[in-house]
Amino acid sequence: VTDTARWRVDGRAATELPADDRGLAYGDGLFETMRVVAGRAPLWTWHMERLEEGCRRLGLPQPSPGMLLDEVAAATDGLDDAVLRITWTAGSGPRGYPRQATVPGRLIVVAAALHHANTFMATHGVALFECATRWSLQPKLAGIKHLNRLEQVLARAEWDDPSFSDGLMLDIDDRVISTTSASIGLVVDGVPMFPALHRCGVAGVGRRLAMASLPDAVETDIDRATLASASEVFLTSAVRGMLPVRAIGDRHYAAGPVVRALQAAWTTAGMPSLRPAEQP
Amino acid sequence: VTDTARWRVDGRAATELPADDRGLAYGDGLFETMRVVAGRAPLWTWHMERLEEGCRRLGLPQPSPGMLLDEVAAATDGLDDAVLRITWTAGSGPRGYPRQATVPGRLIVVAAALHHANTFMATHGVALFECATRWSLQPKLAGIKHLNRLEQVLARAEWDDPSFSDGLMLDIDDRVISTTSASIGLVVDGVPMFPALHRCGVAGVGRRLAMASLPDAVETDIDRATLASASEVFLTSAVRGMLPVRAIGDRHYAAGPVVRALQAAWTTAGMPSLRPAEQP
Repeated sequence: VTDTARWRVDGRAATELPADDRGLAYGDGLFETMRVVAGRAPLWTWHMERLEEGCRRLGLPQPSPGMLLDEVAAATDGLDDAVLRITWTAGSGPRGYPRQATVPGRLIVVAAALHHANTFMATHGVALFECATRWSLQPKLAGIKHLNRLEQVLARAEWDDPSFSDGLMLDIDDRVISTTSASIGLVVDGVPMFPALHRCGVAGVGRRLAMASLPDAVETDIDRATLASASEVFLTSAVRGMLPVRAIGDRHYAAGPVVRALQAAWTTAGMPSLRPAEQP
Repeated sequence: VTDTARWRVDGRAATELPADDRGLAYGDGLFETMRVVAGRAPLWTWHMERLEEGCRRLGLPQPSPGMLLDEVAAATDGLDDAVLRITWTAGSGPRGYPRQATVPGRLIVVAAALHHANTFMATHGVALFECATRWSLQPKLAGIKHLNRLEQVLARAEWDDPSFSDGLMLDIDDRVISTTSASIGLVVDGVPMFPALHRCGVAGVGRRLAMASLPDAVETDIDRATLASASEVFLTSAVRGMLPVRAIGDRHYAAGPVVRALQAAWTTAGMPSLRPAEQP
């Protein structure tokens, strides 16, 4: 549940941006979406590292860290708990694929208050739709959070039954990669496993927290049979936290010790509690 | 060479658009770029067919044909020869991949005058850089002109030597697909050939004119060896017309009868002449 969003464009409160932005024209840009709790983004450093890596990979200028901090503070001022999106584009440019060397990037920031932690999903888990839309393989874009997100939009448009909280996405070679809007992890024979993301997918910041919290975690290719054999399946999101998966198709999973440990790590990192029992 | 661009957003002269547009957020939309000659777009019907097909494939509402015609007329009024871009997005929406069922699309139109036909390139041909960036394979997005164009942006950013007019792009399985901003065709043993585009690429409107003008043209997978064996290689573009390719790496090609026939077909279709000799 969100209040009216607070928008800022290039350092000013504004709800519009120039129509010649290359983010609109070609998806030429990056974004980060994060939780901001009482003016602080607990996973800020990792969001900034992913954004910087994206700028390097796409050949975009780096945004000024001071400007980013100022804009986040202005957008979230007075909010106890907020979702913040930072969009950083290649800026205005003439028609055509060539970037102009001298044009600065454009910063768009939006924040909205969050009022309800979804404790039901964190406690009881979520059911996943099985999406037909696949991740294509593009190593040059894999891992970074760029603005070309039509595969996830099309995957998300495949269902409207609200009993599915998200949808499982494979790549075109049938590897398990993610859901439409979160990272996925599983536990097989006691070992936490995360999909390798060098061909496609987004290297989630919630996932990074999860992997940092699980010293024996491995990153590897995961096929459907491995997913079916898992003792636990869970989602990680820098906004929604750590959620057990309770069903994928007719396969059911129980929440287990790994996702409960990740939920505790989420709170320890400075995020709001995901479960009523954990609240002080 | 262009004058100041004339922008229109949702039916009004405007140079800004709402920051919550899904075209910016996720590349959730489509575009068409075309030539408008004395108020008439000679290839209008085919541009509209591709745009409609894109709306069907992405699940977007269809723009109103009357509104499109009105906007194009307003943007190009008084221009003898113009490049026009129509962008049609999923419109404004809250954060997140799900589209809102009730939100209309957004129409952004921009036109700019063209002053010089590039007769030198049409006569003598263009040299192509060989891009390392590949097209990924995504049948759900292949052929349509959607807003997720980072692969072409990255390919175009690979060179800045102005002796290369465009760059050749292969797919990840080494098939010849296009250049960064035009379709490609070739002639092998007298047969005009165009790349099959059901896995990736953009089904160009200039290419459609070329294929319609060449009754014996075939659409097929094309490897590098076939490209190297061609007697003619040419580019097609709905904006720039039909251009011979004179070099790709150390392989040189001569302009031949097929590209000259296509240049005549371009003029016959109502486009400005590409070569001084053809001018009345």
